[in-house]
Amino acid sequence: MDKRTFLKTGLMSTIALPMTSFIHNIDDDKTTVLFQGDSITDAGRDKAAYYPNQAQGMGTGYVHMAASNILGMYPERHLRIYNRGISGHKVFQLASRWDDDAVLLKPDVLSILIGVNDFWHTLTGGYNGTVETYETDFRNLLRRTKDALPNVKIIICEPFVVKGGSAFNDPKWNSVFPEYQASAKKLASEFNTYWVPFQTALDAVLAKGGAAYWCPDGVHPSLAGARVMADAWLKVYHQIG
Amino acid sequence: MDKRTFLKTGLMSTIALPMTSFIHNIDDDKTTVLFQGDSITDAGRDKAAYYPNQAQGMGTGYVHMAASNILGMYPERHLRIYNRGISGHKVFQLASRWDDDAVLLKPDVLSILIGVNDFWHTLTGGYNGTVETYETDFRNLLRRTKDALPNVKIIICEPFVVKGGSAFNDPKWNSVFPEYQASAKKLASEFNTYWVPFQTALDAVLAKGGAAYWCPDGVHPSLAGARVMADAWLKVYHQIG
Repeated sequence: MDKRTFLKTGLMSTIALPMTSFIHNIDDDKTTVLFQGDSITDAGRDKAAYYPNQAQGMGTGYVHMAASNILGMYPERHLRIYNRGISGHKVFQLASRWDDDAVLLKPDVLSILIGVNDFWHTLTGGYNGTVETYETDFRNLLRRTKDALPNVKIIICEPFVVKGGSAFNDPKWNSVFPEYQASAKKLASEFNTYWVPFQTALDAVLAKGGAAYWCPDGVHPSLAGARVMADAWLKVYHQIG
Repeated sequence: MDKRTFLKTGLMSTIALPMTSFIHNIDDDKTTVLFQGDSITDAGRDKAAYYPNQAQGMGTGYVHMAASNILGMYPERHLRIYNRGISGHKVFQLASRWDDDAVLLKPDVLSILIGVNDFWHTLTGGYNGTVETYETDFRNLLRRTKDALPNVKIIICEPFVVKGGSAFNDPKWNSVFPEYQASAKKLASEFNTYWVPFQTALDAVLAKGGAAYWCPDGVHPSLAGARVMADAWLKVYHQIG
């Protein structure tokens, strides 16, 4: 029995405390932040380093930067930060591993960036899903999350593409992909989640340096692009407090 | 012949420009920043990713954070950032690879963090060097650097130890290691370099969270500790401009 279990059990058996607030205080001791998504979130993380706050487990993208920033800034929050992004994933693949890679981790804050593959793989990977598939699957995932974790604070991150990147070679990026972005935004509003406008943040810096500097293939950001993402994400996280 | 070489050769053969300022302008097009050191700098970098600005090549420590910050902040500088830290190294090992891993890269800014192993391995690794060895070797390395790269801006980073870490288990950390720190500082002043006070920065946050949070073994920082280092480094880098 560890110290916390002992305290909890010990107190509970002898003192009649209001249960809800007591358990609430115990849980507040640690704050769990979970990043979910595809390759942009994964960013080459070492999947064997799956414990919280492990440097090798954060990958080399925006998660690593955002995580280290808040760990450095808020030691008193006892943050436990997990990266569970997996390269290539679409919403239905998040759903297939959601129990292990989201619900069981009991995040206080859950950040999700998903959607670029739901569209991109229809161009390159023989995937047949539509924007309706994306929106329906994503809505179901959010419902399931809210049911399992009613107090979780959800951050939906805007899927993005950087114009001029080497994968930005089909007019559907202009005509169809924005529908996926609109679906994500609609769900953020429907579920009253936080929203990180990655597209806006990257568009704002694009003129200086171009896609080659910020996001060579248009989908996977460079270190510079990931830093811009991290800053946009942190702005929202600081609001959550 | 690439565009830049063509421009340079073409112009030089036809117009009588003042050479020094002309070459200066060409070189100013890119700014090379090189991080040198031991495992704290290495931080598990992928050594196959040795080109500048590669995310996997930055490791997961303060270099990754500092690099992504300045890449995100200064696109107009055309930064080329290299991490050439190697785990376990002492000054004499930097010297043995200095031509390939420093001089040939022609850094405009060279950041060096070295010294903890020069001391630590006398406790644990059967190494016989003294603080005099450290200071002499480091002075020779700095002279050699200045001779080869007269305009390089050098940043010397303070070697540090976090009290309470698991490797902080010998009274010599208190009695002898500070002499190594003093030598590094003396050389910074002797060569008129920039100085990053890592010990001060880490001491300032230690009370909240303790060594387990910032630097579990006292030598290798956590993500949180690396973030504190990156912030201290960035403060100095911003002065360089």
